[in-house]
Amino acid sequence: MIGTLKSLRPTIGVFGRRNVGKSSLVNALIGQDVSIVSAIAGTTTDPVEKAMELAPLGPVTFVDTAGVDDEGELGTLRMARTTAALERCDAAMVVVDEAGLGADEEILFAALRSHETPFFVVFGKADLAPPRDADRDRLARDGIAAVAVSAVRGEGLAALREALLAVIPDEGFETPHLLGDLIRPGGLVVLVVPIDLGAPKGRLILPQVMAIRDILDADATSVVVKERELRDTLARLGRKPDLVVCDSQVVLKAAADTPDDVPLTTFSILMARFKGDLVAFAAGAAAIDRLRPGARVLVAEACSHHALADDIGRVKIPRWLRQYAGGDLVFETVAGRDFPADLSPYALIVQCGGCMVNRKQVLLRQRRAAEQGVAMTNYGVTISRVQGVLPRALACFPAARAAFEAAAAE
Amino acid sequence: MIGTLKSLRPTIGVFGRRNVGKSSLVNALIGQDVSIVSAIAGTTTDPVEKAMELAPLGPVTFVDTAGVDDEGELGTLRMARTTAALERCDAAMVVVDEAGLGADEEILFAALRSHETPFFVVFGKADLAPPRDADRDRLARDGIAAVAVSAVRGEGLAALREALLAVIPDEGFETPHLLGDLIRPGGLVVLVVPIDLGAPKGRLILPQVMAIRDILDADATSVVVKERELRDTLARLGRKPDLVVCDSQVVLKAAADTPDDVPLTTFSILMARFKGDLVAFAAGAAAIDRLRPGARVLVAEACSHHALADDIGRVKIPRWLRQYAGGDLVFETVAGRDFPADLSPYALIVQCGGCMVNRKQVLLRQRRAAEQGVAMTNYGVTISRVQGVLPRALACFPAARAAFEAAAAE
Repeated sequence: MIGTLKSLRPTIGVFGRRNVGKSSLVNALIGQDVSIVSAIAGTTTDPVEKAMELAPLGPVTFVDTAGVDDEGELGTLRMARTTAALERCDAAMVVVDEAGLGADEEILFAALRSHETPFFVVFGKADLAPPRDADRDRLARDGIAAVAVSAVRGEGLAALREALLAVIPDEGFETPHLLGDLIRPGGLVVLVVPIDLGAPKGRLILPQVMAIRDILDADATSVVVKERELRDTLARLGRKPDLVVCDSQVVLKAAADTPDDVPLTTFSILMARFKGDLVAFAAGAAAIDRLRPGARVLVAEACSHHALADDIGRVKIPRWLRQYAGGDLVFETVAGRDFPADLSPYALIVQCGGCMVNRKQVLLRQRRAAEQGVAMTNYGVTISRVQGVLPRALACFPAARAAFEAAAAE
Repeated sequence: MIGTLKSLRPTIGVFGRRNVGKSSLVNALIGQDVSIVSAIAGTTTDPVEKAMELAPLGPVTFVDTAGVDDEGELGTLRMARTTAALERCDAAMVVVDEAGLGADEEILFAALRSHETPFFVVFGKADLAPPRDADRDRLARDGIAAVAVSAVRGEGLAALREALLAVIPDEGFETPHLLGDLIRPGGLVVLVVPIDLGAPKGRLILPQVMAIRDILDADATSVVVKERELRDTLARLGRKPDLVVCDSQVVLKAAADTPDDVPLTTFSILMARFKGDLVAFAAGAAAIDRLRPGARVLVAEACSHHALADDIGRVKIPRWLRQYAGGDLVFETVAGRDFPADLSPYALIVQCGGCMVNRKQVLLRQRRAAEQGVAMTNYGVTISRVQGVLPRALACFPAARAAFEAAAAE
C-alpha cells in the first residue's frame, strides 16, 4: 500500500547552508547526539542518517546533509551527495539561521520544487534573532510554511513536529498490511462475508477484497463464506484455520461458531488498525463503560454519505451507547474534514471506519484527542465492545487488548 | 446482474389502436397462433403473453395489449390493463396500420416516454400502404425508429427482429450468473489467482471479485489461492472441490495440480459465457486449427487501452496463432465500437474478454459473424485452445464442448 513513497519509512531531508545548525536541530528533535556538531562550517561532510519515532506516525529517517554552499573540490563532491539525498527524500526542511533567506535558499527551493518534494522552512536560531518580516512575506508569497525554533533552548520543537507531520506525504502514514503480517506462509484464513440487502450487487466491499488480496500476498489461502455456512465449512475444512475474520454485523454468530482456540477478529478491527492506531482505539473503547446519561459523544464521519435507515453511525451506535449509559446521551455528528479543535466537551469520540480518509488524517485526530485527554475509539472497536466480544476480537493484537484491559481497569 | 429490467426475461409491449394487426404481427414473428386474431376490432380483450426465442438474446415475452382506442365501460377496463402492461414492459413497439399516425399514437408516445420505455414504430400493413412521408418525418423529428412490415406476406420480419434487439435495454441481454448456476448450495469452489506484477496493488480484478460474490450468493464457499499454493491447498482441503477456476495465465499448472475428476475452468471462459455466447465462441475456436499462413485475423478489442509490453491481444495471441498456422498471419486490430460490417475477409475473429462492453454488444457481434459464416472466438477460449486444455476447461459446459468438438471434426 506504499504509494509513491521512496522508502519504507518516510525520509526527511535536512537542507541548508553550512553552519546554520542543521545537525543541532535534528539532535534537539531526537534528543541524542549522533552527528558531530561544531561551529566550524561544513562539519557534516556526508549525509548522515538518523532515525526517530515521530508520534503518531512511527519511525522516520532524517538525512542530515552537508551545507549547500560548500566550496572547493570537496565541496563539489558534498553538493553532489546533497543532490543525491534530495532525490530520495519524501519531504524536506530547509534550515536557516539568523542571516535569514538568501540566494542559497532560493536555489534549494527551486531544487525541491523540481523534485516535487514537499518542504517547509525552519528558522533555527530564533534565540539569536526572530524571523524577519521580509522573509516571512517571501515564504507567504509561495505558500511555504515556516516555524521558528531555538534548538539550544529547546523552544518551538512541538511546532516543528507538527510541521513535519504536515509535510510528510499521506502515504508515509500508510501501513503495508491489512492482515498479511498476522499470517504465516501456507496459512489459512476464513473470511465471513454476510450478503445482506445493503451489499453491492455482484461485488464485495473494499475491506473484503483487500483482505483476500493481502492473504494471497502473504502466500496464504483464504476461504470466503457467508455466516450461515461458517460452522459447516469449519467442520469440513480438514484443518484449523489460522484466523477467522468476520463482518462486525455477524461477530456474535461467528464467535459462537468458531472454536475458542481459533483467533477471531472483524474486518472493522483490521481496518481500525490499517487506518489508525488500534492500541489507542482499544484503550478509548474502555470509556464506553463510563458513559453516564447526559454525556456528550462526538461521532466523526469521514464522508457526508446519505444516511441509511439503520445507519451505523447515526442510529445503531447511538442506540447501543445509550443502552450502555442507561439513559440518553447528547450526540453530535461531524462529517468530512470538520473535526473540532476543542475536544474537551466530549466524554467520548467515535471515529467512523474511515474508508474514505487516509491513515494520516485518522492518526492526527487520535493524537489531538490524546493531547486533550479525551477518549477516542472507532466504529469497529465500538461494535465489538458493545457486543461483548472485544477481548476475543483483539486476541491477535496483544498490545491493543492490553491497552483496553488496562484502561477498563482504571 | 439484472439491472433495472422489470422481469427476468425482457418484456416487450405491443401497443396500438384496435385492429391494426398487433396480434397478427406477433404471431408472424413467433410463427404460431396464440392470440385470437380477427378483423373485429378489439378481439384481444386482456393483455396476452407470448414467449419466443429472439436470437441471439434468448427468450423474450411479448405482451399483446388491447387496443388503446377501446370504447365504453369494457374499453375503460381494457385501457387500465393496457396501462398496467405498459408499466411492466422493458421495451415497446407501437403498431400502426395503413391509416398511419394519429392522435392515439401521440398519446401512446407520450405515455411510453413518461414511463421511460424505449420503443419503435411498426408500420404493420406495408402490403396495403407504405408509410407516408409525413409520418416518417414526424418520427424522424423525435428520433423514433420505424420498420415497415407485412405480416400477411411475412415481409420485413428480419428488420423487425433487428429493431427489437436494438430497442431492448442492454441489461436485457445480461445473464444472472458468472458461475453460481454451476454450484450446489454448500459447495466448494477453488479460485486460483496469480499475483503478478500486473495485478493492481491491494486489489483483485473484477472477474475474481464477481466470482467470489456469485459463489456466496449460491450459498457456497470459495477458497482463494495463488497457483503456487494450489496443490498443497487441494491436498489439505478435507474434501474435493466442486470446481476449480483459474486465471488463464496459469491454466497449464492448475490443470496439472488439479485431480482429473475435479472440473476445471478459467475466469476467462466464465467471462466469455457471461459476456457472450460461449457455445458459439467454442465452435469458433476450432478455426484456429485451420489457420494457414497469410490468413487474415481480426482482433476486436472493446476498449482502446494502452497496450502493455506483453499485451494479450497485440502480442501473445498473435504469437500463439502464428505458431498454430506455421507461418505469418495478417492481424488487424479494431478497438472500441469499431467492428466491421463486412467480416468476409477474415478467417477468424478473436474478441477480447469484453470487460468494458456489455453482453448485448458481444452477442450482436457474434450474430453478425454467424450470419456471414465467419468463425469468431474470444481471448479466454483461444488461450485454453492454444494451451491444449480447451476440452477440459469446457467440461462443465457440455454444449460448448460439443460445439467445439463438432466444429473441430468438420
